[in-house]
Amino acid sequence: MTKYMTFRKKLSSASKKNNSLLCVGLDTDAKKISGSQFEFNKKIIDATHDLVCVYKPNTAFYESLGAEGIENLKQSIDYIKNTYPEIPVILDAKRGDIGNTNEGYIEFAFNYLKADAITLHPYMGKRSLDPFLKMEEKTFFILCRTSNEGAGEFQNLLVNSKPLYELVAQHVKDEWNYNGNCGLVVGATYPKELKRIREIAPDLPFLIPGIGAQGGDVEKTVSAGIDTNGENAIINSSRSIIFAQNPREEAEKLKKLINSYRKI
Amino acid sequence: MTKYMTFRKKLSSASKKNNSLLCVGLDTDAKKISGSQFEFNKKIIDATHDLVCVYKPNTAFYESLGAEGIENLKQSIDYIKNTYPEIPVILDAKRGDIGNTNEGYIEFAFNYLKADAITLHPYMGKRSLDPFLKMEEKTFFILCRTSNEGAGEFQNLLVNSKPLYELVAQHVKDEWNYNGNCGLVVGATYPKELKRIREIAPDLPFLIPGIGAQGGDVEKTVSAGIDTNGENAIINSSRSIIFAQNPREEAEKLKKLINSYRKI
Repeated sequence: MTKYMTFRKKLSSASKKNNSLLCVGLDTDAKKISGSQFEFNKKIIDATHDLVCVYKPNTAFYESLGAEGIENLKQSIDYIKNTYPEIPVILDAKRGDIGNTNEGYIEFAFNYLKADAITLHPYMGKRSLDPFLKMEEKTFFILCRTSNEGAGEFQNLLVNSKPLYELVAQHVKDEWNYNGNCGLVVGATYPKELKRIREIAPDLPFLIPGIGAQGGDVEKTVSAGIDTNGENAIINSSRSIIFAQNPREEAEKLKKLINSYRKI
Repeated sequence: MTKYMTFRKKLSSASKKNNSLLCVGLDTDAKKISGSQFEFNKKIIDATHDLVCVYKPNTAFYESLGAEGIENLKQSIDYIKNTYPEIPVILDAKRGDIGNTNEGYIEFAFNYLKADAITLHPYMGKRSLDPFLKMEEKTFFILCRTSNEGAGEFQNLLVNSKPLYELVAQHVKDEWNYNGNCGLVVGATYPKELKRIREIAPDLPFLIPGIGAQGGDVEKTVSAGIDTNGENAIINSSRSIIFAQNPREEAEKLKKLINSYRKI
């Protein structure tokens, strides 16, 4: 009997149960809400828990309020864990430091907040991230081709005629994934690159931001991002859902739209 | 009359006043101390404030305790600001997200914590970091050649026969530094690379970790890292000072050792 359920198993089970590839990003900008971040998130979570495969709070929006924001982030994840334990949580923290220092981020993400997965920067290399990669039950989404404008400044540079982001995908697949616990962050705003990265890493889970406010095309994203089983593409939308007049309606619409392109 | 004093001016003035290039890294690992992180830091700060040019707390060690750690981090920086306002503070947070999300980290680092500078990952490119780079009075230390083992996995990859870290240095110097507020993080454990990066960016301030516990050589680091005025190299030591029997003695020894190699 295993002591834990891996992120990958939780994800697969939530995705099947809710028939969904949708991730709701809890980018709860304190300037856009009245009341506490936790109360805001609670409403979003209650309204969408049967429509998503995962939640993804981004730490920046909570750190902006300092210790109080961190409390609200913890309360939000605790609420998911206690009320909808079938839904895993990716902490979108984009961390990455030298080995011994990463232990602090591990305490934060997994012991204090009890997240199931985290996003990480690749720049310092695998050995710096080994303290993360050793944790079999979690999943580590490594930034590969990000969704922002100007992402290509370094990510598209050619190394032996291959863009750097392809090398990141290759290294993660071949060398970092020794515990089967790695994934990649690939922006929806670059569907051609997404397709190419899916060819390089056919089995890794992809976290795909950039739909909605950032303008990524849903059809292209889904068909380029899914694996051969029509799975393992986690399609994130944040602002367009959580700040909508009716977040449930918006989430349901996007979930269905994603599924309509999910033919395999 | 300007409303503020820039990080660069504060650094230069503290460095001259204390005749020091030493940065004490407040890597206050909660597992290694008794009592609060703030009380521990207060003693270190009181014991070393006239020997350093800057303090550098690393967020990972505070986040490990969640909201309580963030409170302790804030108290520690507040204490420096109130008691020794001449000493600037670099928040070693190694952040980097898409543009609008970075606003949250800006709130955290500069409005809530009141740091003077922050460390950032380069992987997502200049445009993602513009919300930081627009802040003239702060300084942004971009990870260039990091001090950890395995740092070369991506940083040493050749792009048009130049290693990636050289391109990062070049981009930061030529394009990111439009407000004269950029610096680079270059590990002391790679003195040859440090020398090369100093050639590429003769005027940028370098934050140089890796002395002490990580094994960097002080003589090589100082002579490769300083600019033509014998300045702008911020030489960090964390564990070997803060966990020493006598932190002041250790800091004084290292400050003097650094100065002995500071001939220009």
